[in-house]
Amino acid sequence: KYGRGFKSTSCRSLHINEDNGRFLLLAILILVYLLCGAAVFSAIERPSELQAHVRWNRTLYNFSDRFNITLQDLNSFLREYETAVAAGIRADSLRPRWDFTGAFYFVGTVVSTIGFGMTTPVTVAGKVFLIFYGLLGCAGTILFFNLFLERIITLLAVVMKAFRLRRLRTSGFLPPGICRDFAASSLPGWKPSVYHVMLILGLSAIVISCCASAMYSPVEGWAYLDSLYFCFVTFSTIGFGDLVSSQGESYQHQSLYRLANFLFILTGVCCIYSLFNVISIVIKQVLNWMLGKMNCLCCQ
Amino acid sequence: KYGRGFKSTSCRSLHINEDNGRFLLLAILILVYLLCGAAVFSAIERPSELQAHVRWNRTLYNFSDRFNITLQDLNSFLREYETAVAAGIRADSLRPRWDFTGAFYFVGTVVSTIGFGMTTPVTVAGKVFLIFYGLLGCAGTILFFNLFLERIITLLAVVMKAFRLRRLRTSGFLPPGICRDFAASSLPGWKPSVYHVMLILGLSAIVISCCASAMYSPVEGWAYLDSLYFCFVTFSTIGFGDLVSSQGESYQHQSLYRLANFLFILTGVCCIYSLFNVISIVIKQVLNWMLGKMNCLCCQ
Ligand SMILES: [K+]
Ligand SMILES: [K+]
Repeated sequence: KYGRGFKSTSCRSLHINEDNGRFLLLAILILVYLLCGAAVFSAIERPSELQAHVRWNRTLYNFSDRFNITLQDLNSFLREYETAVAAGIRADSLRPRWDFTGAFYFVGTVVSTIGFGMTTPVTVAGKVFLIFYGLLGCAGTILFFNLFLERIITLLAVVMKAFRLRRLRTSGFLPPGICRDFAASSLPGWKPSVYHVMLILGLSAIVISCCASAMYSPVEGWAYLDSLYFCFVTFSTIGFGDLVSSQGESYQHQSLYRLANFLFILTGVCCIYSLFNVISIVIKQVLNWMLGKMNCLCCQ
Repeated sequence: KYGRGFKSTSCRSLHINEDNGRFLLLAILILVYLLCGAAVFSAIERPSELQAHVRWNRTLYNFSDRFNITLQDLNSFLREYETAVAAGIRADSLRPRWDFTGAFYFVGTVVSTIGFGMTTPVTVAGKVFLIFYGLLGCAGTILFFNLFLERIITLLAVVMKAFRLRRLRTSGFLPPGICRDFAASSLPGWKPSVYHVMLILGLSAIVISCCASAMYSPVEGWAYLDSLYFCFVTFSTIGFGDLVSSQGESYQHQSLYRLANFLFILTGVCCIYSLFNVISIVIKQVLNWMLGKMNCLCCQ
């Protein structure tokens, strides 16, 4: 009897703090997801890391032998190279980092929080300015993305309502002569379901990524799969910076390529941001379902 | 008269598409903000970029002279070093990239979209897995951040309601013996204003950043301002990767430092994400005010 009473108490407290319960459940699930992901990535990537170490050590010793340089000298040279790399210098010459277009690309990666890191401020003034610039810029961009999502859902609602009306009319539920506005107003509260929006955003993301990759692949000389990986990493605003588009010193049709690059990243980021938000709504529904199940088990 | 008629038409169409107008106005403002930012950053950083080029070229020529290596050989060596750097190798040895803790740090930067890029998958399997892993993980994390913001606002509402009640009681508006629950229910719809939440989140962000910097600065050997810059870049999920914490081969109290690093980044990202969202609400209010002003000017 005591056990029963304890159970129902804990159950009631679960019920009272449903919001906290959902938050806690999500935190636990994310932690498990991270641990599983770490195990899988470690298993996939560890061998190639070890190979890369062996290969690099061989290159280093060969070079040191061939030109009779001590490893110490070589390492201090490489350290200076790393400093130069941080300032945006590479062995193959790249476009200037801080001319106007380069700086524009940079601020784009700041406000979108992509943050490739191909260009980073190195002066104290630049770093301080970045903090204040980013604070307002990132907030503005989040609002932009949210308004974009709202606009997309409104657009989808209008389009899908029109389709529904047409179907109703062709299937004979509505007489053909009826006033269109009246018919539209007869579906007033109707909104597209979250699954419809998810499907359409998902398809858009795939189409945009494939088109963008078809451009990046020949222009940058990346494999198609690498281009797809670049698109996902960029559009999701992860922005590792291992692959960055439009960094070469010059391209054919350079202005056109830069514009296309800008537009692809803009639409892609908007699309994937919206997709993430819609998926997160579905995850919330799954969490609620799980909490409901747990409550049921608990109260039986 | 024609002009007047045209004006009022455009005004009505402005009124009808208020949502679209807000979206367009924001897009224009962001574009202007980007252009201004690009100009300022270009002015601040361009001289130091040119200096870095001069310095690096001097180092390169000196080294080539001293050890009698052709620039071609040296550049091809540096290109091999860049490949090694992409696999996570540096002149100073770092912690392993793909052991379990390294992979855990990596997946953390993926799902939070920080994406430092100190570790990136290089195998095809890793890249493909990343796309699917990130899709679910980022969506889950966005939900986590949103629930966190909701929880914070609820907490603030409870705390501030308690303060208000106390003030009401001490100022004599409420008799001291009154039932507390009844008093609480007499402020039912009351919520903290967006400015209160912004102030508290802003102060929290500053406190967290300062505390985190006080830890990073001595442990990593960064200047305090660099640490603050690192905190902003990380917590805002920009994550350039020019400075990355906890990358050394070993630290004193290593486990403790790694845990503290994890907790600081987690709370910092939650805090700044919430702050960005609250600031974006304020920006939306400013946009509405601007649209109202424009409407007034237009309809006069
Ligand atoms: K990044
Ligand atoms: K990001």
